[in-house]
Amino acid sequence: MSIGWQELFARRARCITGSQIRQYFSLTEKPEIISFAGGFPESRCFPGEEISRVITDLITSDCRGTLQYTPTEGNWDLRTYLAGKMQREGSPCGVENIIIVDGSQQGLDLICRLLINPGEPVLVEEPAYIGGMGAITSYGGIPVGIPMDSQGIMPDIMEKTLLKLRKQGQSPKVFYTVANFHNPTGYTTSLERRKIVMELARRYNLIIIEDNPYGELCYEGEVPPSYISLDREGRVAYLGSYSKTFIPGIRIGWIAGAVPLIEKICLAKQTADLCSNSLGQRLACHLSREGYLDRHVKRLIGYYRRKRDAMLAAMEQYFPPEIKFSRPGGGFFTWVTFPRSYPPARELLMLALERKVAFVHGEGFFSNGGGTHCARFSFSQASLEDIDTGIRRLGELFYEVRDQAGRQAAHG
Amino acid sequence: MSIGWQELFARRARCITGSQIRQYFSLTEKPEIISFAGGFPESRCFPGEEISRVITDLITSDCRGTLQYTPTEGNWDLRTYLAGKMQREGSPCGVENIIIVDGSQQGLDLICRLLINPGEPVLVEEPAYIGGMGAITSYGGIPVGIPMDSQGIMPDIMEKTLLKLRKQGQSPKVFYTVANFHNPTGYTTSLERRKIVMELARRYNLIIIEDNPYGELCYEGEVPPSYISLDREGRVAYLGSYSKTFIPGIRIGWIAGAVPLIEKICLAKQTADLCSNSLGQRLACHLSREGYLDRHVKRLIGYYRRKRDAMLAAMEQYFPPEIKFSRPGGGFFTWVTFPRSYPPARELLMLALERKVAFVHGEGFFSNGGGTHCARFSFSQASLEDIDTGIRRLGELFYEVRDQAGRQAAHG
Repeated sequence: MSIGWQELFARRARCITGSQIRQYFSLTEKPEIISFAGGFPESRCFPGEEISRVITDLITSDCRGTLQYTPTEGNWDLRTYLAGKMQREGSPCGVENIIIVDGSQQGLDLICRLLINPGEPVLVEEPAYIGGMGAITSYGGIPVGIPMDSQGIMPDIMEKTLLKLRKQGQSPKVFYTVANFHNPTGYTTSLERRKIVMELARRYNLIIIEDNPYGELCYEGEVPPSYISLDREGRVAYLGSYSKTFIPGIRIGWIAGAVPLIEKICLAKQTADLCSNSLGQRLACHLSREGYLDRHVKRLIGYYRRKRDAMLAAMEQYFPPEIKFSRPGGGFFTWVTFPRSYPPARELLMLALERKVAFVHGEGFFSNGGGTHCARFSFSQASLEDIDTGIRRLGELFYEVRDQAGRQAAHG
Repeated sequence: MSIGWQELFARRARCITGSQIRQYFSLTEKPEIISFAGGFPESRCFPGEEISRVITDLITSDCRGTLQYTPTEGNWDLRTYLAGKMQREGSPCGVENIIIVDGSQQGLDLICRLLINPGEPVLVEEPAYIGGMGAITSYGGIPVGIPMDSQGIMPDIMEKTLLKLRKQGQSPKVFYTVANFHNPTGYTTSLERRKIVMELARRYNLIIIEDNPYGELCYEGEVPPSYISLDREGRVAYLGSYSKTFIPGIRIGWIAGAVPLIEKICLAKQTADLCSNSLGQRLACHLSREGYLDRHVKRLIGYYRRKRDAMLAAMEQYFPPEIKFSRPGGGFFTWVTFPRSYPPARELLMLALERKVAFVHGEGFFSNGGGTHCARFSFSQASLEDIDTGIRRLGELFYEVRDQAGRQAAHG
């Protein structure tokens, strides 16, 4: 007898579906392809020797603590360090406000598990981080997109959306945001807009999930104060990550938030996976406390800034002028907008792959259609030389596409 | 304005509650206490030097692969190794049947997320592993206990329960079991009973979640064939773990199961935490493939066998004869049953703590009451000397308790 899995799966399993983008990764991440698709950090920057040294020291000095289960809340010293870090960044956090998670994605998953009922609208940026929307929809939440411009989220439209939902009898409880060097657009929400959003959150009783994996990778000026530092009520759940500023392979991130939320997250994490890996927690803690990671982030900033500059300069030089792209002040991504006269970005990607270059077309970042003529370009992984070569090849392609589109328009 | 978290939490959050036992850990795990409470592996056995050596080698030979994100399914080489291991143990697994998870607890969480609708009955052993019941109830499942005796789960009562539920219009989809050296009882389900349970699973269309953290820690004879090796339909989801046979601090386990289930688990894991930590996966893979861990498990067996023998001998010597205890063939636990004339085990624990000895009283392992006169004793962490001292102190206590109970009965 064969097993009818579809009938056995729980109702909630219907909400758990793969992301469009991942399906393309098998095409975009081949070795012969110059890829601007994946948003991984550059592995050439991983401090391998430092990691070997510290792990050996940790195991020699405290084998038990380094390799045994940890409390579900996480390693006390790491939580203490992170509370201090949050304080230095303007948020009055104590150890009790911090829980360690398996990367900020787990943080997002646990928060959505606790807050979102099936069918509830959840405010997100439009476009939005795909993994964020995935966590929301996997618990039955309905992402409702609020558009962005180069100053970030647009609070006037947010308020209109809240009013409209209220008229329909719906009260969203959550706004999910990547306010610094947003994935996929690279935009940063301005301080002025953050203040308005904070006020809207107060008036409409919204919890803000502030996902900040890229904030430290700031290539010019400073990032505005975080939502959690502007908050006086405990309505911000902040997600921090070591994946972009150190390494992803330890899967260590943290949540900072109000004690009642953190305590409930701790209960949820007990059944989710008991605790995060202690080796990674100790490693992150040691390198953070000794100041190594602050110096490492400074090196990363110089490194990624050169890549960003190279990509923007190449786009300026090689792309037809009607193709627009964002000028991110940090992070990994620039957002490219093609004219409506061009074929959809999905088709452009197929043509680009023939020339051994890849990016991510835009639709996956939109909850309800849209993004057909947009694309995310990541400059984090390709070498400076590949950035120039890849963007040049695409520039040639786009000029051909433009000419063809022009001819078709003339004949049409 | 203070935030009304109870109103903000989703309905499912009501099901997420802490375990009774964890509340006691703050009492039982103080340094001055001889603790038979926690079920952790003995950290003196952690192969620290070996781990340092291998991590240094891995980072030197492939820094990128060791420290970058891995695919959600897990490291290919580790999955290949584990498929081979499952094959050697009689289950026809390929790589496509294996997914790596953050310890078997995450495996349990993801499977429950996919299979259990709120309000559905889920068959469990009685008593049952607390973390297993926690995962089930956190998704709204209702544990329905099937009693055990020294031969393990009792299939005749399982069938009666299934028939009774069917009459009530309920069809459980899942049976969760720790068939080898069960937590908390130490019992192992016999081959004969496994075959009957397998047949019941076929007839009643049950998925068996076979959680096997202790099977390799076998101190005499052999464990019976696993459910997954008896299965020809793909209705067993097997949970394997490195936590007890290697170290818990890397949080690496695996699920072996039918392809449609593994594929859906992979989608759920994408939003749950993207992937498990690559450092731990590579470490487990390397030490498994080079045969180190097989030799390590042999050493652990000798080590834990001596502890088990010491605890059983001390109980034999010091406990009043009317106190019964199980004689586990492996694992970490023995299950102690006090006469009804004694005070409840919860009260005995309070008295034991005054004498600086701890164990876990039984109620937390029962879904619907029961277990008041039972307790779980773990021999995994205490030293041989502490085992003798601790059981002797408890023996003295139990003789006093017995005398007092006898006097009260005479006066009553």
